[in-house]
Amino acid sequence: MSEAEALEKIEKARRARRGRFSLNEERITLNHGAGGKASSVLVEGLFAEAFGMGVLEDAARLPQDLVLTTDSYVVDPIFFPGGDIGSLAVHGTLNDLATSGAEPLALSLGVILEEGFPLADLRRIVQSAADACRSEEVRIVTGDTKVVPRGKCDRIYLNTTGVGLIRHAHQLSLGAARPGDSVLISGPIGDHGITVLVARGDLHLDLELVSDSAPVTRLARALVEGLEELHCLKDPTRGGVATSLNEIAAASGVAVALEEDALPIRPPVAGACELLGIDPLHVACEGRLLAIMPSYLAEKALDIARTFEPRAALIGTILEKPEGTVFLRTRLGATRVLDMLAGAPLPRIC
Amino acid sequence: MSEAEALEKIEKARRARRGRFSLNEERITLNHGAGGKASSVLVEGLFAEAFGMGVLEDAARLPQDLVLTTDSYVVDPIFFPGGDIGSLAVHGTLNDLATSGAEPLALSLGVILEEGFPLADLRRIVQSAADACRSEEVRIVTGDTKVVPRGKCDRIYLNTTGVGLIRHAHQLSLGAARPGDSVLISGPIGDHGITVLVARGDLHLDLELVSDSAPVTRLARALVEGLEELHCLKDPTRGGVATSLNEIAAASGVAVALEEDALPIRPPVAGACELLGIDPLHVACEGRLLAIMPSYLAEKALDIARTFEPRAALIGTILEKPEGTVFLRTRLGATRVLDMLAGAPLPRIC
Repeated sequence: MSEAEALEKIEKARRARRGRFSLNEERITLNHGAGGKASSVLVEGLFAEAFGMGVLEDAARLPQDLVLTTDSYVVDPIFFPGGDIGSLAVHGTLNDLATSGAEPLALSLGVILEEGFPLADLRRIVQSAADACRSEEVRIVTGDTKVVPRGKCDRIYLNTTGVGLIRHAHQLSLGAARPGDSVLISGPIGDHGITVLVARGDLHLDLELVSDSAPVTRLARALVEGLEELHCLKDPTRGGVATSLNEIAAASGVAVALEEDALPIRPPVAGACELLGIDPLHVACEGRLLAIMPSYLAEKALDIARTFEPRAALIGTILEKPEGTVFLRTRLGATRVLDMLAGAPLPRIC
Repeated sequence: MSEAEALEKIEKARRARRGRFSLNEERITLNHGAGGKASSVLVEGLFAEAFGMGVLEDAARLPQDLVLTTDSYVVDPIFFPGGDIGSLAVHGTLNDLATSGAEPLALSLGVILEEGFPLADLRRIVQSAADACRSEEVRIVTGDTKVVPRGKCDRIYLNTTGVGLIRHAHQLSLGAARPGDSVLISGPIGDHGITVLVARGDLHLDLELVSDSAPVTRLARALVEGLEELHCLKDPTRGGVATSLNEIAAASGVAVALEEDALPIRPPVAGACELLGIDPLHVACEGRLLAIMPSYLAEKALDIARTFEPRAALIGTILEKPEGTVFLRTRLGATRVLDMLAGAPLPRIC
């Protein structure tokens, strides 16, 4: 099958898939929170309509070059190799500011606690959040604490909301990818999601895994300042790289072609994914950045990214067609469509 | 007993009470979330220290006259007479912006859903939040949805965070009350807390109660613009009027004297409080404003407030001593100290 034939086939499959997820369900399922297709149907079909939102970026632009972004955190377990719910909540919101090209001004922290939660754990989480802020020279300036009776929450849930300021002239947007652009990933894929899943202990796997949870603030700043043109920045969290690129493909009306050979995936992550039957491209990262820029700047972007993480890689190209599609050119020369995450194989990874 | 003697006695009692709540507990209790003394010990002893916060206002001041405020909502039941968790979340955060004298720029909405939550209820709550925004000409510009497995949350929890802009020259602060100032309440006390408690249905009371949940944005704006001097604005939510005034008394180093006769309390609220053994001054309002201004402006402030709600009232005076104390002059001429809310008689009222 030629690539043209493959693309035609993909286009057909895509049309068939449309409408498979709708808001006809009567009750919320775990799928609605997995960050994939059901989440996006819920957000587009309910929230965006009620609040009159436009394209759903991770951070909203306000007057005076301000941006606002919010995330709640329900990760299980709350402590995992490489981080905890406190540092994760700070990194996640800093990263949503960073992908809008904004410098963080301040964060808020909302805490929901289950009655009986150990104060020592709370202290550790709060300290971890404070340390994550300190290293990025940003502060949590306001907060709120609620306590619910035992059994009405799973230990602790957090919300961090960030306000930032855009100080550059790039028009970063999920809708700004153009045919011919290059796709960069700032480091190995899927470490966070797999680490959390394995840390839950149900799988009895003994793998050396560490979450990638980290701020991408400095990398985003370096790309924004170092590149003459930059089209999209996106942190591939819930739903992973494949879901993030599907959002970009849909918003930009383009296709994304990834090269399987170019994808940086650590062996233990690849191994765990194979055992679990999960595509690492659907697994959340919490300290990685997807960047899309004109191809003439791709090597320059890679040089910048490699000063932060040597395994940063150029992983694909933006094509004109089929619009709204992401596909993978495999090692064997085949072409495989990469859809948004459809189910919820990885609940509560953030 | 003369008032001087009474005050002396109060001062002694206050010293004895100090330190009764400390962070020596090993586990979180419902008290830590009730908005009273245990909450403030938790916030001051743990969060403020870790994040290097100063005086804990409801909204934090940022550079460029911006303010940021956050609140999570875990109210039970989620629908109650006069509102629901959606409108409450919008009003609560708008009111925290209003009490800092800020005009709202935008809100964010974080949603945590329990698997199985009816989509129709979600739609109703989202619509109610959107309507609450529309009437105040503010928008929810960004959001986030998480879903947790059945039994890991009680239906729905929300977080709203607001960013606002200060456009006036008043130095509003909980620490700005001065001896001689007057204390205004913008309407009847305790309606929200009692309504929610009764709506839970455990009490089998048949009272005509409606929450006061409402935005105080316009009233705050009218006071800010209409008064030459204004010292404090505060919405008496968790912990009620008594707790809010204790916070002001402590932050300002003053005493607050309330006149029992002047307190506007609806008969069904007073009746329910008597049955339950709760002081209405410890019951949350969600659409009321406490305002403190020099006494020469008290009548002017009252006139402004009465254009919004005819039962607005001047309820007390700021005194020099005993510092950090709130007391009530009763109808019978006695003096009774009003402490911060100490326990958690009213869990999950917001």
